[in-house]
Amino acid sequence: MHDFSVGRRSFFAGGLGLVAGLPSSGRTLGEPRRAYGERAPAEHAKRFFRASATPGTGTSRTPLQDALGIITPSSLHFESHHSGVPDLDPALHELLVHGLVERPIALTRNELRRLPTVARIHFLECAGNSWQLHAGKTVSGVQESHGLISCNEWTGVPLGTLLREVGLRPGARWVVAEGGDASRHARSIPLAKAMDDVLVAFGQNGEPLRPEQGYPMRLLVPGWEGNVSVKWLRRLHVTDAPAMTRDEAAKYTDLGPDGRAQQFSFEMEVKSVVVSPSPGGRLERRGPHQVSGLAWSGLGRVTRVDVSLDGGSTWKEAALEDRGLPKAFTRFTLPMRWEGEELLVQSRAWDETGARQPTREELVSARGLREGPDGFDHYNGITGWRIARDGTVRHG
Amino acid sequence: MHDFSVGRRSFFAGGLGLVAGLPSSGRTLGEPRRAYGERAPAEHAKRFFRASATPGTGTSRTPLQDALGIITPSSLHFESHHSGVPDLDPALHELLVHGLVERPIALTRNELRRLPTVARIHFLECAGNSWQLHAGKTVSGVQESHGLISCNEWTGVPLGTLLREVGLRPGARWVVAEGGDASRHARSIPLAKAMDDVLVAFGQNGEPLRPEQGYPMRLLVPGWEGNVSVKWLRRLHVTDAPAMTRDEAAKYTDLGPDGRAQQFSFEMEVKSVVVSPSPGGRLERRGPHQVSGLAWSGLGRVTRVDVSLDGGSTWKEAALEDRGLPKAFTRFTLPMRWEGEELLVQSRAWDETGARQPTREELVSARGLREGPDGFDHYNGITGWRIARDGTVRHG
Repeated sequence: MHDFSVGRRSFFAGGLGLVAGLPSSGRTLGEPRRAYGERAPAEHAKRFFRASATPGTGTSRTPLQDALGIITPSSLHFESHHSGVPDLDPALHELLVHGLVERPIALTRNELRRLPTVARIHFLECAGNSWQLHAGKTVSGVQESHGLISCNEWTGVPLGTLLREVGLRPGARWVVAEGGDASRHARSIPLAKAMDDVLVAFGQNGEPLRPEQGYPMRLLVPGWEGNVSVKWLRRLHVTDAPAMTRDEAAKYTDLGPDGRAQQFSFEMEVKSVVVSPSPGGRLERRGPHQVSGLAWSGLGRVTRVDVSLDGGSTWKEAALEDRGLPKAFTRFTLPMRWEGEELLVQSRAWDETGARQPTREELVSARGLREGPDGFDHYNGITGWRIARDGTVRHG
Repeated sequence: MHDFSVGRRSFFAGGLGLVAGLPSSGRTLGEPRRAYGERAPAEHAKRFFRASATPGTGTSRTPLQDALGIITPSSLHFESHHSGVPDLDPALHELLVHGLVERPIALTRNELRRLPTVARIHFLECAGNSWQLHAGKTVSGVQESHGLISCNEWTGVPLGTLLREVGLRPGARWVVAEGGDASRHARSIPLAKAMDDVLVAFGQNGEPLRPEQGYPMRLLVPGWEGNVSVKWLRRLHVTDAPAMTRDEAAKYTDLGPDGRAQQFSFEMEVKSVVVSPSPGGRLERRGPHQVSGLAWSGLGRVTRVDVSLDGGSTWKEAALEDRGLPKAFTRFTLPMRWEGEELLVQSRAWDETGARQPTREELVSARGLREGPDGFDHYNGITGWRIARDGTVRHG
């Protein structure tokens, strides 16, 4: 049994310094204003880069161990590129909308902006996020295991608005989105989703999209695996059937234990992870601490998160930050007390559909295990961090 | 009478180009990933800087004419400094909490972070925002008239948590907050507010505070005039009475028509402004457009925004983005149709207390007019932008 309770006034009981006097600080005139601000020099973002033979491909991850709140800075949004970040001129780049539409059209970003726009806070998660945990590997920390997810405020035109403007022709069932990167990444999206909550986005956290995030415009498909949210969007082709592009035939399918692969498994299911404490961090003193983490679901709102300190024998419900945003990060917190014992810290989340985050055992039982990265997409299992007697935190 | 209705499919009726073919774009391998992203080179932030004899003092403003959604990028948060941005070492800078407390304490930012933290989306508005409109001046645009406001996600420790940890002594009624800038900017805050929703913040939009915004820690006093949210916080002195600092005696008081000044007029009342269209922009074609703007109230949630196109003769209720965040930006939108006539576009907002944004005439009647900037703080009047027959937008 572990003590979740935190006594009154106890956060300072572990020996924070008594006051020697009023801290000194300089009285020289400070730095002037800036046209565009930057981080403090002492604050280095600790990014995890997996080695890549071609620098344009591969991923960068969001340093979730340092994340605060639910908004990811645009500068720290995860990246996953197949052929690098194209250099697109917003005055020349156009989005073509054609196929089974009444009035095909080509639009620049500024022309798109004239349409009614909305802003929504949503997470984006790579289908492959946390594949190492499915495979049973030990990770260096939460950035490596979960950092292929970020949460931003996205501004754009609802795709439904755009499709109603061009007019759908009989037989329209799918929308094939194609990117302006060299590899022409492309995915097919069922019309029902396209008319629901998909955005053609041009804004990110209050300013234009960053180049890495699809500038000058991208698709934003809330709750679905990240690769469907096609970046550097150049084409929306309305069709009667999926295009069976390379990215939905040779890639981004889920190989099952029987050797058959499932296509179009779009939704990212309910998931959570403790980010503090997490590997790389350390409990520096005994006494009260705060467990803090992130939860999300591609199917709607997170309704509950539990935390266990003893490897899943006992659980306690965490407090949720009161946002109630669907398909967005929800921050959860829970006070805990640590007196130098070994702990195994885990979280499990539920969403508004009633779905519970599964254990790894449940996922492996349903999906099997195989060599290599194939078959390990969409891993949303419960993760645990071990706290040693000296306060260090590690995985596995 | 003006036509707010927008016919189906009509956004493209004004003559966006027919499709010549699939747009071309390069197929060369793009740029590699970056450890910390930046804006696209083509996107220059248009900042308004008022000239200052000493570069450390003065203001920079948020370019609201380009704002998207409700989150202001940290790099574009408005600034108002009295003696520049101090260069504080987060390992050395400490916050002293003393006075009428049982256990005075000095805390670094990292020690502060061990306490339970919360994240909240709030606007910060300078008391002097929009003073030009009270004075009857014509402005170049919404950045000049309203840009001393921004809205961020702030992460920090509730001040109430911190004060309960140190224990209040009998007679504690006010908390005097002092900054670590050279001028030692300081304000007194009534204990009821300090125990309510004030944060000692160390995070901004998911990463550490920016230097201009108080790094490594600041006060964040939701809904109150910005100068109370003391940056570079170095001291919280619990007292039985306000300190009558220079910044609440010689400055930041509201001079009335009878020559008497009101102190401690903290709350920023309900206000709104149309940001699109706004001066500097232009309606480039006849037909449907979207009016978009921002509304906020220091007293809680925005409940309604109306838009007028004819200088206030007729009004129509705008749609509000469905966030319902108190003391935060609320984005409002309304479709409109423009056929080349002159328009005067205005917005008026209500908050959950039932308060309505006043007209300038109502404010001048209540507060009077005088020369110079004195007496013009807390202006929250209705603002109008004129659209000329050629589509250009201007003020006055």
